[in-house]
Formats: sequence, structure tokens, C-alpha cells
Amino acid sequence: MTPPGYLKKTRKRRFDDLFELLRFRSISAQAKHTADSKACAKWFAQHLSQIGFKAKLMPTGGNPIVYAEYITARNLPTVLYYGHYDVQPTEPHNLWKSPPFDPVIRDGYIYGRGTADDKGQVFAQIKGLEAVLRATGSLPVNVKMIIEGEEEITPSNLPQFLDDHKAMLQADVCVISDTAQFNKSTPAIIIGLRGNASAELTVYGPNRDLHSGAHGGSVANPINVLGYLISRLHNAKGKIAIPGFYQDARPITGHERRQFAKLPFHARDYIRECGAPALHGEEGYTTYERLWSRPALDINGITGGHQGEGPKTIIPAWASAKISFRLVANQKPNDILDKLDKYLRQIAPKSVRLELIKYGGTPAVSIPSSSPWLEAARRALKRGFGEEPVLMKEGASIPVVSNVRTILGLDSLLIGFCQNDDNTHSANERLRIRDFENGCKAAAVLPGELRRIKESHFQTNQRR
Amino acid sequence: MTPPGYLKKTRKRRFDDLFELLRFRSISAQAKHTADSKACAKWFAQHLSQIGFKAKLMPTGGNPIVYAEYITARNLPTVLYYGHYDVQPTEPHNLWKSPPFDPVIRDGYIYGRGTADDKGQVFAQIKGLEAVLRATGSLPVNVKMIIEGEEEITPSNLPQFLDDHKAMLQADVCVISDTAQFNKSTPAIIIGLRGNASAELTVYGPNRDLHSGAHGGSVANPINVLGYLISRLHNAKGKIAIPGFYQDARPITGHERRQFAKLPFHARDYIRECGAPALHGEEGYTTYERLWSRPALDINGITGGHQGEGPKTIIPAWASAKISFRLVANQKPNDILDKLDKYLRQIAPKSVRLELIKYGGTPAVSIPSSSPWLEAARRALKRGFGEEPVLMKEGASIPVVSNVRTILGLDSLLIGFCQNDDNTHSANERLRIRDFENGCKAAAVLPGELRRIKESHFQTNQRR
Repeated sequence: MTPPGYLKKTRKRRFDDLFELLRFRSISAQAKHTADSKACAKWFAQHLSQIGFKAKLMPTGGNPIVYAEYITARNLPTVLYYGHYDVQPTEPHNLWKSPPFDPVIRDGYIYGRGTADDKGQVFAQIKGLEAVLRATGSLPVNVKMIIEGEEEITPSNLPQFLDDHKAMLQADVCVISDTAQFNKSTPAIIIGLRGNASAELTVYGPNRDLHSGAHGGSVANPINVLGYLISRLHNAKGKIAIPGFYQDARPITGHERRQFAKLPFHARDYIRECGAPALHGEEGYTTYERLWSRPALDINGITGGHQGEGPKTIIPAWASAKISFRLVANQKPNDILDKLDKYLRQIAPKSVRLELIKYGGTPAVSIPSSSPWLEAARRALKRGFGEEPVLMKEGASIPVVSNVRTILGLDSLLIGFCQNDDNTHSANERLRIRDFENGCKAAAVLPGELRRIKESHFQTNQRR
Repeated sequence: MTPPGYLKKTRKRRFDDLFELLRFRSISAQAKHTADSKACAKWFAQHLSQIGFKAKLMPTGGNPIVYAEYITARNLPTVLYYGHYDVQPTEPHNLWKSPPFDPVIRDGYIYGRGTADDKGQVFAQIKGLEAVLRATGSLPVNVKMIIEGEEEITPSNLPQFLDDHKAMLQADVCVISDTAQFNKSTPAIIIGLRGNASAELTVYGPNRDLHSGAHGGSVANPINVLGYLISRLHNAKGKIAIPGFYQDARPITGHERRQFAKLPFHARDYIRECGAPALHGEEGYTTYERLWSRPALDINGITGGHQGEGPKTIIPAWASAKISFRLVANQKPNDILDKLDKYLRQIAPKSVRLELIKYGGTPAVSIPSSSPWLEAARRALKRGFGEEPVLMKEGASIPVVSNVRTILGLDSLLIGFCQNDDNTHSANERLRIRDFENGCKAAAVLPGELRRIKESHFQTNQRR
């Protein structure tokens, strides 16, 4: 029997098991569901044991981590799979058409909390591995797997866990299915994620709120000054105006631009989806380039002075803004925050006092387009989904990817099976049955392709 | 007996009566004190009747207004006195060294809520009039007096009252003692008050808070844009950058500059008092000029995006700022707000939508330095306080002054008897005994001086 044949034959049990998994109320953000989370972890460990993995629950300061492995042979490549069993909260419940933890099939979709994010996806990976194991009696690679229970909360105990078990987790590459496809018909490999850095700026003026009639025009108003400082963070072309900000930033390559230009983009759809009046951004770049390969600076919150209804004539004592950056390859979060600090102090008038709290950040990660593992992922997705995947990036950070990179030294293959409209953090979360099935198929192809890549890469290296 | 002799002789009763007046808990902002306010108004009416005025309580939508008059002769000038019997709340009580409604004398000051603002001051005016009446058997002018009970709250019923009783309130000039002297040794006549205008600006971007990783750099961030708009409200020289803003503004005159320059100003004291790191404002003007004769624009409050602790990676759907102006003579509040509106729409990027709520405002008022009444006020203060008063302005508006100007067509003589450090809106409000006594004396001089001015002015006009 082939792996696809096994998947087909075991379809009913596969769905029954998935539904059982989806019923656990493993909401990590809610203390009342701690026992549900632990039960879900236990279920995963038992399930992986039944398939033939050595699996166990490993305690952390919070929800336990499921760790499982299947070691075929020392000389084979080792693949670290990552997934998470915790899910987002489900409020407000009245928006759900069917109960979030009572999965149902409607119109070709499985509906339920965790279908797409991430139980359904990690389950597809497991089912693919199981199919290979049952069809061939073994796995073509060594597999290690961690399924955490704190992906949806901050801080997660995962970084500490990775750091504590570096030897155990040694591998050649990491595989993560926790992202979306490019669109309904095209799978995607995410080859880059922007980093971030954030800080909070407070501008202090007078020692108390002053009457703006009695003092207006004679002392600096912290909000006026904050507005000025914010305006000086960008220049007229939408570039970030902090001296040295772009110094280390890896410029976009011609190759990258050509790749992104191949992807369909419909400005009107994008604008409608965001509800913004128009596109906006750095001159000379397309929206994909702006989102994936160019840094950005956003003020995420601002506060100062009178917050209630109507007018109030004061000059406030202070005003503050939360500032965050999206960074690209080679930019260092702390260096960027230091440059911000220096710049703000240079341009601020002497009539105010500044305070900048630096929250640090995460560097950008990218998978070099020369990485041989990408080819394996490409082939697996092509076989599973019947379509050539696109190589794309994401504007947001996924902390595990940079943790796996920083702590374990591994690149991650981000091959997600869900869609952007699968409501991952809102009501009526779902996973298209076709995507789940294709995901299982791709997952069954991936290990063999990874082994093949390793072998050809190894031979290439030998020849050198 | 002379009026000063009468004041001296009746000193004890004068203080007893003042203390009785100060015991009323006439806090207009607190509904539980409505009866106290009414009792205080009644006390004033009875007291004025005893002196010889025709006095009554006149109902309004809120606290009653005390109206009293003493008509000497049709051909004499008529002076409208204004004061208020309501006081500020007294919280927090623990800061008071003695109970706010239990007046006491300490170190040459009377301590108690309302001593300076405004019971003590209006009472001094009444005592001055009484002294003239008792010493001479009559008053040299016709006197009308309104003492309202809603000065410390918004909106007050006073403008409606003035409008409803224009004929009854017909007069030549208004006298108000509700401001401070220039300093401990120098009385002041306030000859100008800035106007104001205010509005609230909201910048709308996406239709919901967006993930700043997924969208940062591709759509306009309402806070970034708001910062930019705020920064464009002033130019580098501290001038307001709205086109046409200064078009109607009366420029500062050489005479005014020379007057202000004569007044002592200690930058270090001013900075220490405000707690601001440095002075700040429009280039080319002194602090007094900036405060009294130049317009100003302050952001009084700003809100948008994440308001809680720590970072949150969103592009907020909107951000808003409360904007207020201080205006000088001839600037029209609604015209200024229209110009603001037009300018903001010109400079805002097309990637956001603006909303501007206009709250309207009050025009500046000033007493022409050519007004003959000023000379009477000058003489009265000089006689009462033994020092030449300074002519100065205030940065803030006093609504009654513009109401009296707009509705009754009267200039106001703002001759206050208290000091800037008399804690008028905070704990331990006080009035220096010397200032109270000098105020009574000046008040006894003023009517005769007003009559003399009217006569000489009348003769001058006759000669022409």
C-alpha cells in the first residue's frame, strides 16, 4: 500500500480522531482550562505512541510540552516538527454558528476552534508521517516533534524549553505548519519574516497640567512636541528618517522583486479588506515589497492630556506614544532602539524632557533562497496540492521561528495548509477539508523529499 | 465721618459679617449643596437690603441670581457690579490646614473657601459702597449689582439672564473684582483677555485595528498621520502655520510692548513655578507678549490605539486630538476653526479620512487704553492700595467679561484684590487682610472717581 492509499483507507478514523482532538478546550489564556490543556497534551502523546513514536509529556512552568521522536538511523537527516495544541479563546460565543468545541462539517469545511490554528495542521503532519510509517514500515528520516501549549499566550515557556534541551532537539531542519497558503488554489512557502522592536516614548513638560489660557504660548506642550517628534520619524517619501536606520538593512534583491512581482495583487481588494481609504507607504516599492522586505515604523498607541468628552483647556504634564518597528534582515533590534533614542534626543526641543523605555525585539529571519530544504518543501506541496507553491514572506514575526533559529541554529520550513480567511483568531474558525487532505498528502511526501535533498546535497559536498 | 473712617469704625462687624458669608457651603458643582447656595444668595440679598439697596433673588434654571440696585439720579453714570457667591469644591479635605467653611485668621490672612474667589472680593466692593453711603448719605453714581451662583460651573445661566434683562441691566460700565493683583505690592487692572476656540480632530484609517506585522508599511497609520498634522500646525519659529490665521489678529502695539516691558519678569521663577524645563514660544516675543497679546494653539488631549501597559502590535483604526486656540483681538473663533478645517484637509494624505468637530469659542476682549473709565479705576486702586496699579492682560478668557461686552455692550473694569498664590481653586484658599482692607478702601473711592470721569468726559464732549 502507498501512503496516499493508507490515507484514503483510514479516512473515517482520521476524521474521528481529528474531531476528538478538536473537542479539548485547550485555551491557554484561560486558567479554568488548564486541565483541558493538559488532557489535550496527553491525548497527543498517547496518539503519537500508538503510531510508533516514543512520546512523553515534558513539564514547563506552564502547560506541558509534548515531545515525541522516531529515530530511524544516525546517518539520516533529522527533522524537527513543531506545532501547538493550545487555541485562542472563543468569546464572543454568539458569533459562532456552531459550538466552537463541537466540530462539524459544513460546505466542505470543518468548523471548530483549533481546526486551522493549529491542531488540524499539526495533525495533518502526524497523519502524513503515520501513512509513510504504515505503508513502508519505517520513516526515511529521523523525526523529532514538539507540540507546545503556550503559543497563544505571552510569554511562552518554549524558549526556555529549547534552551534546556538543545542536545535532545538537535536536528537538520525544522518544519512548521502554522501559516496560510497564498490563496485558495496556491500553496505557499514562507521564506522570510520581518523582525520587530518596540519602545515607549514619554514627553514631559510642566510638572502638572497647566491652564492653557494662563500659560498657552509660553511653555512647550508635550502633545504638540510629541506630534512633532512623530512627524520627524518619516520623511516625505515614506522612508524612516532615523539616521543610520537603513545602514544594516539588507536591500531587496532583484530576484526577490521578480518573485514578488509574479504574485497576483489586487489593490482594490487589499484596500477593501483593510477598510483603509488608500494604499500608503515607502515610495518606490510595491505593497508586497513594503510588507515583506522593507522595514516599517508604526505608532501603536498614544495618550496624553484630557481623555474625556468635550474640550478641556489644559497643557498636559506629559504625553506618551508606543512605537514599534518591523525590521528586515541584518537589522539589530537593540541597535535600532538606540538609534531611535539618540535621534529623538537630538531633535527634541530643550523645553521638554524625554523618557524612552526600550522593550527590545526580535530580529528578522529568512531562509536563504539557496537553502536545499526549500526544494524538498516545494516538491511536497506540489505533490500534495497539485499546484506549484509560491515563495513568499510575511510581514509579522512568528517567535518560534526566530527561537528555533537563535537557540537551535535551525532554518524552518513554513508550509501552512490553511487559508487567510479561515478565521484563525475569531469566531467560526475552519479548515477546508480539501486543504486538510492535501496537507496530509504533502506531509507524507515531505520526509522522503527531505532525505533525497540531504543525500544529493551530501554528494554534492563530497564532490567538492 | 469719611468713608475710610466708617470702614475703620465698623471693622469688627465687617469681619463678623464676612465670616458669616464664608460659612455658606455654596458649592455650585455639587447638587447636595443647592440649598446652601440658595441660602447664601438670600444672605446677600438681605445684607444689601439692610445697607439700603433694593435687592431680590431672581430665579434661573439653576442657582438664583442676586440682583440689587441703588438709583441716585437719572443723569448720573450707572455702574454694574458683578460678583459670584458660588465657590469651588473643597476636596481633597486632608490638604486643608483648617476646615474650608470655618474661616480663621492666621499670619495676616483669612483662610477659607471663597475668601478670594469671590465672596471676599465682592463683599469688599459692597463694604466700600456702604461706607460711601453711610458717610455721605448717598452714592455718587447709580449702582446695579448682580451676584451669580454658577460662575464655577459650565454652562452658567448668566448669559441667558443678561439677555433676558437687558433693559434692567442698562449701565455705563461694569466693575468686576474676581482677578489677582500683579504681585504682593502692586495692584493691577486687567485690560485684555484672550479669546478661545476649540475643536476635536479624528483621523480614521483602516476599519478596525490591524496587525502591524501583517500590514505595517502598506497602509497609513492614523496616529502617525495625526502626529504629522499636529507638527504642521506650527512652523519652526513657533508661529501657527494655518493659512490666514493671523489675518485679522490685531498686532501688538509699540505702546503695549513698552507697557509690558515695564513689568518685572523673572524667567527662572516662572519656569520653576510651571515646572517646565525651559521657556518656549513664538520667536520675537517676550513671555508677557506671548501670553497676553499673541495667539496660541495647544493640543489638550490625544488618544488612539493601545492605551494599556506594554507594547501591542496594532495599526489603530483611528486617533483623535483635542485642539484649542487662544485668540487675540479681532480674530473670530468660528472663522479660525473653519481655517483649521480647510488646512487640515489640504495637508492630510488621501490614505486617511478626517473628522473635525468644532466646539466654537469666545472672542478676545480688551478695554481700549483710551477708555476714560480706566483712569477712575487707576485712581481708586492707587488710593486704596497706596501703589500705582499696572495695566496688564490675562491669557485666559473670563466668560462674563465677553458676555457683558457682547450682550450688554459694556466694558469691564477688572480690578481684583487677591494674589496669584491665594489658592483660589485648591486647598487653603486665603485672602490677605491687608488686601481685603485696601480693597474696601479702593471700592469706596471708585464710585466718586467714576462720576468725576463721566463729568469731565461729558464736559469734554460738550466742548467739541
